[in-house]
Amino acid sequence: MSHAPTAALDLRHQALRRALTGKRLSALAVTSLPNVEYLTNFGGTAALAVIGADRVRLLTDSRYLASVAATRGTPHECPSLELVPVEGAYDSALAGVIKTMPGARVGFEAAHLSVGRHAWLKKTLGGAARTPRLIATEGLVERLRAVKDDYELEVLREAARRLSAVAHGVFAEVRAGRTERAVAMAIDARIREGGFARSAFETIVASGPQSALPHAKPGERTLTEGDLVVLDFGGVYDSYCVDLTRTVSMGPAGPRAREVYGAVLKAHDLAIAAVGPNVSRFAIDSAARDSLAAAGMAEAFGHGTGHGLGIEIHEDPRIGKRRPDVDVHDEVVAAGMVFTIEPGAYFPGWGGVRIEDDVLVTETGVEVLTTVTTELLEI
Amino acid sequence: MSHAPTAALDLRHQALRRALTGKRLSALAVTSLPNVEYLTNFGGTAALAVIGADRVRLLTDSRYLASVAATRGTPHECPSLELVPVEGAYDSALAGVIKTMPGARVGFEAAHLSVGRHAWLKKTLGGAARTPRLIATEGLVERLRAVKDDYELEVLREAARRLSAVAHGVFAEVRAGRTERAVAMAIDARIREGGFARSAFETIVASGPQSALPHAKPGERTLTEGDLVVLDFGGVYDSYCVDLTRTVSMGPAGPRAREVYGAVLKAHDLAIAAVGPNVSRFAIDSAARDSLAAAGMAEAFGHGTGHGLGIEIHEDPRIGKRRPDVDVHDEVVAAGMVFTIEPGAYFPGWGGVRIEDDVLVTETGVEVLTTVTTELLEI
Repeated sequence: MSHAPTAALDLRHQALRRALTGKRLSALAVTSLPNVEYLTNFGGTAALAVIGADRVRLLTDSRYLASVAATRGTPHECPSLELVPVEGAYDSALAGVIKTMPGARVGFEAAHLSVGRHAWLKKTLGGAARTPRLIATEGLVERLRAVKDDYELEVLREAARRLSAVAHGVFAEVRAGRTERAVAMAIDARIREGGFARSAFETIVASGPQSALPHAKPGERTLTEGDLVVLDFGGVYDSYCVDLTRTVSMGPAGPRAREVYGAVLKAHDLAIAAVGPNVSRFAIDSAARDSLAAAGMAEAFGHGTGHGLGIEIHEDPRIGKRRPDVDVHDEVVAAGMVFTIEPGAYFPGWGGVRIEDDVLVTETGVEVLTTVTTELLEI
Repeated sequence: MSHAPTAALDLRHQALRRALTGKRLSALAVTSLPNVEYLTNFGGTAALAVIGADRVRLLTDSRYLASVAATRGTPHECPSLELVPVEGAYDSALAGVIKTMPGARVGFEAAHLSVGRHAWLKKTLGGAARTPRLIATEGLVERLRAVKDDYELEVLREAARRLSAVAHGVFAEVRAGRTERAVAMAIDARIREGGFARSAFETIVASGPQSALPHAKPGERTLTEGDLVVLDFGGVYDSYCVDLTRTVSMGPAGPRAREVYGAVLKAHDLAIAAVGPNVSRFAIDSAARDSLAAAGMAEAFGHGTGHGLGIEIHEDPRIGKRRPDVDVHDEVVAAGMVFTIEPGAYFPGWGGVRIEDDVLVTETGVEVLTTVTTELLEI
């Protein structure tokens, strides 16, 4: 569970209620679990929330009732919480709650309710005169989550500080003769020892030609003199995710490795320098992409420049290319947003480099939360 | 990625195509990632598949193209695969593929396509005369996945054997004076050392009063003489999940602990004895539930008796109570299904017991895949 103070939850509820009023909605049925956690601190694996004008109903089952009840009276209890025990199916319980709101316009999260569940809910609510209407909404809670509040910034700063400390231990685990898998296991152990609840994703240790695969899985390959090794790892601290990548060289780096590393580092530095309030997400991406293109590495950088960090490891804002086939909303980044900057260059059969840090948009520019050397380490 | 042999994938495709023909569908757009993996062996974090009559289109992005291409010519390559690189948004690429099928009835997975994505696809496909139609389907691939093929049974047997071996090491980690968190970290390390890619879920170490919470998170509580300790852990082996729980006593167990343990063990044994081909899922659940009720512990057992295991840690079949508010299909279990049996009894403030094994329905009855003593260990 998250430990946001009650006052922070209250502010989140107020902001959401303003958004609901703007859309003439009486309530929002929240089916995204990260959104439920953001609004209530709930930390289990199954719950729904219905945010109305005067209370927050949390629907969960017997596995979690006791732990939610135990937050009552604590500094991080959810304000105006009504706990609704789910005995049968979650959607039945949700329909039961919605039915208590005759004539209401109840928003649902179109990105987090399947066609099947929506059809069942509609059928179950029926079509009588005062039946509540289900109205599709997009990103109401995600938009709030993208801008971190003071509590979240405190947690993310601490998490990034801890991950940076872990990184120094990670370099000590990289030794010629060890397998990628053994190094990945050691990194995961260090993440836990560093105070994280768990790794934020499957740790990447990609050596030699494997480093050309941006999402390689650690395998039985042995780290060997002359390899580049991409180390990409993250942790979940008090429900919030941080993420870091460094690429190291096993022994002295050759001229090609130095050239690629230098180009990626330049792209990384330029993208970070581009970050600030009211800057276009696409401009931040272009800062990295254009720089790699100028170095003749346009084709070598296939993924986006970064992604938001928070309760999810990938959330808004997305720092990537403008795409003609995707509707653009929320183009500019704002103070309080936290995201990764992680350009890379990958050459199939040869290898690759990625360098990743976590940054916060401030009122005046940018603060880099992770603090690990970006020099090319030769191990 | 999964390593199912090409011939196994081919049989899965044939079975799915028969189901599609039965529904007069030309193709199925598969948006559930576990379903994509089941049909193609794809092991990354983003892909879609479109299964047509003559080929399997796999849509994925630059991060995964090289690793999919590398499976060509191997014994586990996906037959009739057409790799479709996704350059922009996944749903644009999907719409692009569907548009190449004029007049077709294209099934989609109603449980795995959000209302938002469905609306976007419909709008993008447009309403011209020969526009392909999107048809909602439910559980077509899940139903196939519920009955394991020979390759899957081999993997699950090996995974259960390995998890049983890990369990013996787990007992050695349980020592008075260690925190729940330290024990959980040690269990996770043993899971990895046991050959698993990762833990299948967040390992549960719940001691003393915490053991009354079925999904407790390991915390800073120290294991103490007189505690019951619920140890619930699992691993992912070649993409398949196995799951095991034992409850141990720190030092000699008192009479109440022995009584509760005995009642849960009896429920566990009776449920396993009830398993066989063509047996109702609800009857298996009742075998455990009625036994606990007879011991006066009906209220203490709030969750279901078990869940299917496979590419997901929770999948069909669900072994639980019959519920008036849920439509029942596939009531009986069949040979080749693999699921957990995990009754428990929980007493808030006092503690709880859960005992879990993984079982396979055979042609004649049941095979218990996990092989760890069910005696109450006093550590």
